[in-house]
Amino acid sequence: MLASALAYKIGAGLAIIRKPGKLPYKTVSATYTLEYGEDKIEVHEDAIQKGMKVVLIDDVLATGGTMSAAIDLVEKLGGNIVSVDFLLELTFLGGRKRIEDRGYPVFSLIKF
Amino acid sequence: MLASALAYKIGAGLAIIRKPGKLPYKTVSATYTLEYGEDKIEVHEDAIQKGMKVVLIDDVLATGGTMSAAIDLVEKLGGNIVSVDFLLELTFLGGRKRIEDRGYPVFSLIKF
Repeated sequence: MLASALAYKIGAGLAIIRKPGKLPYKTVSATYTLEYGEDKIEVHEDAIQKGMKVVLIDDVLATGGTMSAAIDLVEKLGGNIVSVDFLLELTFLGGRKRIEDRGYPVFSLIKF
Repeated sequence: MLASALAYKIGAGLAIIRKPGKLPYKTVSATYTLEYGEDKIEVHEDAIQKGMKVVLIDDVLATGGTMSAAIDLVEKLGGNIVSVDFLLELTFLGGRKRIEDRGYPVFSLIKF
């Protein structure tokens, strides 16, 4: 819900990343590790074209595990990630470093 | 994703209706019938105050079953539904009548 309002505001398109089995068309997926076990996220394979500028949006940055998998998805599709943005950053969990270490700028509105 | 962009555009608040177990706070729920069996949707109990003006938004109007349950939720909380809006209306499934018969205006951008 953050991403769609922002996309509307800046006049950009919108691609949604979701848990497996939610998206109706062909997808690419990325697996990531949780505290126990692993989980997977997916995006439509035609959602992002090579070289397209992409801003990744999520509500909360914790350890950065989910967002790191989202970055995997965009990289697979050849998207050019220009910013990784969050409403709330839980700074003590160190997720920012994990994303910045991959070469992407992180922005959060609220730090806790 | 439609509702959040619209809420941003008109400067309104946003309440999300979801499948059971998705919302983090106390909820009220409504059950509705599917082709086989039934399903349930929920909204936060404090999402809508009595007399608050509410626009209900969904992507697709089919038989109107889900939206009718959403209307139940808003009515339970005492909201004042001013419009029930869809991106796509599948006119041959008759969902519009079901909602209009409850006394609410229906608006769709695309009719099929």
